[in-house]
Amino acid sequence: MASHFQLLGKDPASAARRGRLTTRHGVVETPIFMPVGTQGTVKAVTPVHLRDIGAQIILGNTYHLNLRPTSELIRELGGLHAFMGWDGPILTDSGGFQVFSLSKLREIGDDGVSFQSHLDGAKLFLGPREVMGIQANLGSDIAMVLDECPPWPVDRDACAVACARSLRWATRCKAIATESGFLAAGHHVFAIAQGSTYDDLRREAAEALAALDFPGYAVGGVSVGEPEPEMLKQVAATTPYLPEGKPRYTMGLGTPPQILRMIALGVDMFDCVLPSRVARNGLAFTPHGPINLRNEKYRKDPRPVVEGLDNYTCRTFSRAYLRHLITSGEMLGGTLVTIHNLHFYLDLLAQARAHIERGDYAAWHQAWIARYAQPE
Amino acid sequence: MASHFQLLGKDPASAARRGRLTTRHGVVETPIFMPVGTQGTVKAVTPVHLRDIGAQIILGNTYHLNLRPTSELIRELGGLHAFMGWDGPILTDSGGFQVFSLSKLREIGDDGVSFQSHLDGAKLFLGPREVMGIQANLGSDIAMVLDECPPWPVDRDACAVACARSLRWATRCKAIATESGFLAAGHHVFAIAQGSTYDDLRREAAEALAALDFPGYAVGGVSVGEPEPEMLKQVAATTPYLPEGKPRYTMGLGTPPQILRMIALGVDMFDCVLPSRVARNGLAFTPHGPINLRNEKYRKDPRPVVEGLDNYTCRTFSRAYLRHLITSGEMLGGTLVTIHNLHFYLDLLAQARAHIERGDYAAWHQAWIARYAQPE
Repeated sequence: MASHFQLLGKDPASAARRGRLTTRHGVVETPIFMPVGTQGTVKAVTPVHLRDIGAQIILGNTYHLNLRPTSELIRELGGLHAFMGWDGPILTDSGGFQVFSLSKLREIGDDGVSFQSHLDGAKLFLGPREVMGIQANLGSDIAMVLDECPPWPVDRDACAVACARSLRWATRCKAIATESGFLAAGHHVFAIAQGSTYDDLRREAAEALAALDFPGYAVGGVSVGEPEPEMLKQVAATTPYLPEGKPRYTMGLGTPPQILRMIALGVDMFDCVLPSRVARNGLAFTPHGPINLRNEKYRKDPRPVVEGLDNYTCRTFSRAYLRHLITSGEMLGGTLVTIHNLHFYLDLLAQARAHIERGDYAAWHQAWIARYAQPE
Repeated sequence: MASHFQLLGKDPASAARRGRLTTRHGVVETPIFMPVGTQGTVKAVTPVHLRDIGAQIILGNTYHLNLRPTSELIRELGGLHAFMGWDGPILTDSGGFQVFSLSKLREIGDDGVSFQSHLDGAKLFLGPREVMGIQANLGSDIAMVLDECPPWPVDRDACAVACARSLRWATRCKAIATESGFLAAGHHVFAIAQGSTYDDLRREAAEALAALDFPGYAVGGVSVGEPEPEMLKQVAATTPYLPEGKPRYTMGLGTPPQILRMIALGVDMFDCVLPSRVARNGLAFTPHGPINLRNEKYRKDPRPVVEGLDNYTCRTFSRAYLRHLITSGEMLGGTLVTIHNLHFYLDLLAQARAHIERGDYAAWHQAWIARYAQPE
């Protein structure tokens, strides 16, 4: 049986990889950016427009969906794909990260995490069995294991405890996914390697999880407040110890330059709310950095956000029109800039794939990042 | 030269008419509903989805667009069609109605209306020359004359003064549109017949305007607070005196039963913010009346809003999903229910056209209205 992940090629001058990931809902070309659909919707955009901009795979948030409308309800209604009208692949996180960032009164134990809902204070518990059950209810194509993400900074002992607990939970999640037939049915489960800023703990975590032979791996605990060089250092301290033949994912990242740099470190998958979140405030991405469409200087600007970029927003509308919508408080402004920003990310990743294939990724990504820092 | 309006057929048992209106941006089959794009956008919906639900013509609001971003800016950017990415026909109102309903400190004189912007208090003036100039800047396919819409109730003398002034302004607007070449270039200008609840004033206004040979006519001053029977009575008191060979339009109306009843009185064109405005609060139209998707009883409802209705929302999403979006405050909820509600109206008018063609409109519309009053 062919592997679910094919490594199609590598960049000669960096660790960038070109791959192809097969899921129950189709094939994903990597490196890939995954638009985030937190509450069962990529905010402000219909799946019609998502398909149109070339989205291959999207993300759902287990924590949010489990609170509302609940994973049981979604299962009753045919799973998350049917529920939200998206028939492509869906990756879901475990919910653990949001338990730490959003919920109240959380208490962590060896069996999992007790916490209170940020919506209504209801007492809830997430352990390996719960997160795998919820993600099975959702019908996730790629489920993430429960892990403990240490804060930044964290002392070495506390980090080692979190790594040990994360390894036990990962082991348990894989066992559950095996026993339940989830893996055999072609769903994937990805492990998450923690270790904070401790290179040896990162290596240890990566190697221990690699030995468990997961279908994919995430570098966890990055973008939790640490400076960018530290973040890249942590990724670089992890990827060499992850199995080459499995996809690699950094969760919740990042700016365009960050993503390009992490591709150069051998990361294959990315998700981030940034392009859609800032879009609703009128911030639009361009090859010369983001521009704020509320700015008076765009009032009469007849140009598209990015000349020649083949998405609905750039093909159809001027900066002046988008500015008018945003300053008038019209919902359509957020929708059209979200379409553009998500496509900007998706197109950037498509360019990255082409340059890896061509073998000039290293030079190209440096030049791209340099231009991005120069306003038009 | 063929007329811009062809009367294709009439219902034997009512005054309903089937027509075809040709504009600079395409043909409109009547009776027709026109989605409202107040500020250069049909709220919450991309033109892609508008086309998909079969919108033939949309409405723009002169008052709003003239304040922001201004009609001069829209002209510089190629006109309203290019500005908002809609290449179908656009009808614009004169702005007069909003001057009366939204602006501050208005003062009406024989030359026009002085008023203050509701946005920033700027002092502005709208007379026949201004409203025709603004609508020419916008590139409107169908421009409306400036009129004075009397409030309800209004005494007979005040109403007669408003009618006389409206007639002078209409005459002036037509002269301006003729001299400027606006009419010769294939733009249409519609007159507006006022008269409030005074049948003889309505007849007088309609006949005087008919004598001026406008490309189309609106029944004005309806839906300004009067009870529904009064509204229908006013329409019935006007349409017999409008030229049969020209399209007829009631502005800002209405509920589905109201529209069907006005079609039976010989009205051809309708616009209303109702379906899109209520959509953003979760109210969805069905053949059994509107339903409130926030209601707990839809929490697990796997059915589409309307079974078998061929629009994106009904083809793809359950009531449970729409409820989830709306109760979670997700923008996509408003977008998807707007798509449905506008399509519901457009489809209702398509059904009306088919029944007029078949010659059974009178019976069909009575049955439709009766069912609409019976909850499912």
